[in-house]
Amino acid sequence: MKAARLYEYDPKMNVQLKIEEVKAPTITAPDEVIVRVGAAGLCRTDLHIIEGVWKPTMDPEGTLLPYIMGHENAGWVEEVGSGVKSVKRGDAVICHPFRSCGICLNCRHGEDMYCDNGQFPGLGMNGGFAEYFITSERSLIKLNANITPIEVAPLADAGITAYRAAKRAAKLLRPGSYCVLLGIGGLGHIALQSLHAISGCRIIAVDREPAARVLAKDLGADFILDGGPNVVEEVSQITGGGAHVVIDFVGELGVENICWKMVRKGGQLFVVGYGGNINVPTAHLVIEEINIGGSLVGNFTELVELMELNADGKVKMHYTEYNLASINTALDDFKNRRFTGRGVIVP
Amino acid sequence: MKAARLYEYDPKMNVQLKIEEVKAPTITAPDEVIVRVGAAGLCRTDLHIIEGVWKPTMDPEGTLLPYIMGHENAGWVEEVGSGVKSVKRGDAVICHPFRSCGICLNCRHGEDMYCDNGQFPGLGMNGGFAEYFITSERSLIKLNANITPIEVAPLADAGITAYRAAKRAAKLLRPGSYCVLLGIGGLGHIALQSLHAISGCRIIAVDREPAARVLAKDLGADFILDGGPNVVEEVSQITGGGAHVVIDFVGELGVENICWKMVRKGGQLFVVGYGGNINVPTAHLVIEEINIGGSLVGNFTELVELMELNADGKVKMHYTEYNLASINTALDDFKNRRFTGRGVIVP
Amino acid sequence: MKAARLYEYDPKMNVQLKIEEVKAPTITAPDEVIVRVGAAGLCRTDLHIIEGVWKPTMDPEGTLLPYIMGHENAGWVEEVGSGVKSVKRGDAVICHPFRSCGICLNCRHGEDMYCDNGQFPGLGMNGGFAEYFITSERSLIKLNANITPIEVAPLADAGITAYRAAKRAAKLLRPGSYCVLLGIGGLGHIALQSLHAISGCRIIAVDREPAARVLAKDLGADFILDGGPNVVEEVSQITGGGAHVVIDFVGELGVENICWKMVRKGGQLFVVGYGGNINVPTAHLVIEEINIGGSLVGNFTELVELMELNADGKVKMHYTEYNLASINTALDDFKNRRFTGRGVIVP
Amino acid sequence: MKAARLYEYDPKMNVQLKIEEVKAPTITAPDEVIVRVGAAGLCRTDLHIIEGVWKPTMDPEGTLLPYIMGHENAGWVEEVGSGVKSVKRGDAVICHPFRSCGICLNCRHGEDMYCDNGQFPGLGMNGGFAEYFITSERSLIKLNANITPIEVAPLADAGITAYRAAKRAAKLLRPGSYCVLLGIGGLGHIALQSLHAISGCRIIAVDREPAARVLAKDLGADFILDGGPNVVEEVSQITGGGAHVVIDFVGELGVENICWKMVRKGGQLFVVGYGGNINVPTAHLVIEEINIGGSLVGNFTELVELMELNADGKVKMHYTEYNLASINTALDDFKNRRFTGRGVIVP
Repeated sequence: MKAARLYEYDPKMNVQLKIEEVKAPTITAPDEVIVRVGAAGLCRTDLHIIEGVWKPTMDPEGTLLPYIMGHENAGWVEEVGSGVKSVKRGDAVICHPFRSCGICLNCRHGEDMYCDNGQFPGLGMNGGFAEYFITSERSLIKLNANITPIEVAPLADAGITAYRAAKRAAKLLRPGSYCVLLGIGGLGHIALQSLHAISGCRIIAVDREPAARVLAKDLGADFILDGGPNVVEEVSQITGGGAHVVIDFVGELGVENICWKMVRKGGQLFVVGYGGNINVPTAHLVIEEINIGGSLVGNFTELVELMELNADGKVKMHYTEYNLASINTALDDFKNRRFTGRGVIVP
Repeated sequence: MKAARLYEYDPKMNVQLKIEEVKAPTITAPDEVIVRVGAAGLCRTDLHIIEGVWKPTMDPEGTLLPYIMGHENAGWVEEVGSGVKSVKRGDAVICHPFRSCGICLNCRHGEDMYCDNGQFPGLGMNGGFAEYFITSERSLIKLNANITPIEVAPLADAGITAYRAAKRAAKLLRPGSYCVLLGIGGLGHIALQSLHAISGCRIIAVDREPAARVLAKDLGADFILDGGPNVVEEVSQITGGGAHVVIDFVGELGVENICWKMVRKGGQLFVVGYGGNINVPTAHLVIEEINIGGSLVGNFTELVELMELNADGKVKMHYTEYNLASINTALDDFKNRRFTGRGVIVP
Repeated sequence: MKAARLYEYDPKMNVQLKIEEVKAPTITAPDEVIVRVGAAGLCRTDLHIIEGVWKPTMDPEGTLLPYIMGHENAGWVEEVGSGVKSVKRGDAVICHPFRSCGICLNCRHGEDMYCDNGQFPGLGMNGGFAEYFITSERSLIKLNANITPIEVAPLADAGITAYRAAKRAAKLLRPGSYCVLLGIGGLGHIALQSLHAISGCRIIAVDREPAARVLAKDLGADFILDGGPNVVEEVSQITGGGAHVVIDFVGELGVENICWKMVRKGGQLFVVGYGGNINVPTAHLVIEEINIGGSLVGNFTELVELMELNADGKVKMHYTEYNLASINTALDDFKNRRFTGRGVIVP
Repeated sequence: MKAARLYEYDPKMNVQLKIEEVKAPTITAPDEVIVRVGAAGLCRTDLHIIEGVWKPTMDPEGTLLPYIMGHENAGWVEEVGSGVKSVKRGDAVICHPFRSCGICLNCRHGEDMYCDNGQFPGLGMNGGFAEYFITSERSLIKLNANITPIEVAPLADAGITAYRAAKRAAKLLRPGSYCVLLGIGGLGHIALQSLHAISGCRIIAVDREPAARVLAKDLGADFILDGGPNVVEEVSQITGGGAHVVIDFVGELGVENICWKMVRKGGQLFVVGYGGNINVPTAHLVIEEINIGGSLVGNFTELVELMELNADGKVKMHYTEYNLASINTALDDFKNRRFTGRGVIVP
């Protein structure tokens, strides 16, 4: 099959993925499923993988390369293991990115991402920048009728990461309260739509890119800010003393230490983007009684919910399509933020 | 001032309210506020009061009549007691229907309707079918700019009763789940809009009245049923085995024993309308693990939230306006369901 | 192997189980596990099975008999299927009663008892009143060190049913609030200990049997009532107007319609026992804003939690031991309530 | 009346409070209450006030001194304002430290400490290191029979601060999970008892003082650590990878950056003590998905709950008694940690 493989890590990201013919995967366990890739989203984590940021975690012994990235996958079931009952060849599916075991206590609590025995196709094992890839039955959700893989692939990871943060936020947001979203990119624009769908809060979208602000406006953000030096004061003015929830999709470049200053007494900051360090006085935490919490990739049931919102037309992924052969262009456009929403690779 | 007063209870409801000149109320305690009535909603409870249903509760000694009904009030502050700080003469306000004490433990938990020392203007003491009525500072919410009393008066009681049930439902409704609303009248149409605003569920609206079904459609119900003899089966088909939540705004006439049959395993029925008796096998409750719960008038903070949704254009009261002089016509039209949404009396 | 089998249903329960030699079970799927039974609890459901109450559900075509009951099992792993990784031969285990699939959406939400594809050893397929029985990997929890199967077997079903109700109750019970338990038998005495362990509420134990009241006292119930004709009034006196939560382990014989009268404004009744019909005015539900909900067998994670409480010495099962050969005596003693706590069968 | 007054701020804390005769307070508003002080707890905040840490907040213009500290008060009602209905002269009461207005939206949500119009006797206005002090009706809770002011005074502030954190923790702690408490002083020993009373978790108590560790042991901590350099590793060993919740009653001296390293994937750190700065990589927050949140003084209903636990014998304050005349000795003993639990001043 055709696949795009990474041959070396490069902090400067000058390397190119190599498009080449490789051996297609085969079933080796009763719960496995081979998926014919319909589309695979491009994630900021892919850039970090190329840079080598993830090497210590996913390739500690340096034996992984060359390998196929791609962890936001949707397509059609090609072949199933002997124990698989819930899907069959030909079913259109979206793939939760993590292959969780279903047996450990974390799985039993529904926290797939905490699985003691999990595997992550696309991170440390071959993923979806190819014609086929292999995952397990527990990762698959059948697509609603009339939904095609390309419309939804990035929901598998970018989507549920944004949705999980939005869902956690929604529990804290009464009508009349305010939620700030920092960064209206691939994740932020899904969080914005999700919040509108599941909560009656008001949304303040912040982005330095004009195109992202246009997207925020199109999607119905209540207030749109350009993230200039007065952003904390602007949020305070709009909200009457601070936002009830702030979601930070940036998490670096100094944004991480602006965010918690926007939070109202008793409020919450969710950190989704990463890279920087938060430095906050305990006295501020206590006197303002704010909470600062990381938010990870969503679990399987969150992907189910997001697919339902998508089927109902309430959350749509904005994307730009690239052929697998053009994946290096896609990576370059992504680095330089030449598209809004998400880039999607089609084999 | 002018007021409409009830002079006798009548199970057949043939009595007329008498429009007459009465003494205006005066401040007698430091926390009291006199409100110039802008509009007062007409509630099914008013019909029950006329019928005498509430007599044992609110008039046990038979000394109340003649008195002024009307417990869904909005208007302008006319005069304030010596201890009142948060509103001043001229402020446009909506009035939570219950005067709670703020001291008892139920009040401290925010459950105004459970207040140990509460009073209910319009039920057992004079209310808002008049030019002025008296309430307390704790009942008042200032209207958002550009909102007039007539647009919102029935939100004070019908609105928050529906909103409270919708809010409780929303906590149980993930995207992709189903909520059935039985009765799309003054309460049901507010619940429908509230659910759309604060949850990503799908709504099945049920009403036997064609006009109510048209309203449900205009407000975006996902499915609309006419409540015929197959309604349980129809709900089961749409939902794949039962609704996650059912809200019953009827509560009598046999509807109360159809509702719990529509609820899916692990689901919830909220009962808002009343009059009938629920008869359910404990084996059904246990094996299906369903919950059946009453839902009362909302509390103060729920009225605040509903006013915010209203200010944001997400929930609007549909109403028909009547002059105080025509209040008997309004009552008659209500009994015969000649309007959709709510009837509102303007002095 | 030796097993006790049921050969006919009898509403009068005059039949005897037959102790006989039968073929031991064998592994037929990769996720299956054969457990050597250490102990198997006797449940009221076993009596109902003999009576034929469960026949329409578990044996609709009348082809099931003779079969082996017993769904509260603990023992040692004897043999595992090819795909089993988390347990091995010799491990001491307790068995969640339901074999859930782990794939359907209900399983993904952690609600094992709602599984679309579940199986129930002991109900409709052979169970644990034998030397061996067969279940699946997902049902097994390894015992903490120093815990033996006989000490815990009934926790597998009676225990988690009581614990689930107690856990749901605990979420509603602040310090200073009151919980009534009706029936301090096999389930009630576990609920009592669980509530003490996980909530700061006060417990009112009600039972007509003196021995059960002694047990309640030994386990530290704050108030103990004999369930006489004034029980509603007694509860009202103790609680100052009604209990915050009532858990009914009886659910029949009229108890089911006493229970909801004990519930305070805004409170909750959990129904665990079954058999009778609840008949309640919707007006009572609404004005008192009470909730009436069934509570089913607990899920896997609830059994994990209960085993932790047991390991910490906070919840202990009171039981009387019988040999498999004496199972008919055990059934007879159970019917006539000759022991407190639970009866346990040892092969 | 006799009172102890502060005459100057001193970062070195060499100043002495002056015991002198001052004018007793008088009622000036209808909701005010004068309390005859039975006992007043000594709080670390009192030390910070003397040091001048609170001057910018509570005495910005430098006009406050001399004034009477003391914000953990219990005693007997001496005189009530004209509008007070819920207490009368002679009632034994404990005083929530904050006089909240009951009208603003934060009060309506039950968050007394966020009140827009609150006042804090003992911080910025005269408090309870005297024979009498003045507060408002909304602050008062009548003592249960047989409870004396001296047994409970510090529950008014130290107690509810610890209880609030413990209550928030308990919501996250299933049986079998672990909670670390750092600092078993006046707050920590209340948190320890509260957690035992309202949750089934296991408690790891950490303190460098041997006497505090003895107290922890007496109160039933499951594990006791001395906070040496390997404390993170020790916690990891005990818990199998980190605690589900950590509560930090220190918040400075480096402890604040050890705490978050003890938290398990998906877990929570509550920060109660303050003084230091937390410095944490966003990547750690996200990948471990941990939450770091401040926790403030508890609200009124939390004090009610704590008093119920106290009445039930589940939470007791350990204290050392000092006469008002010896308050400077008490302050000195506190600084040098010469007593465990709390110091209490009796007029």
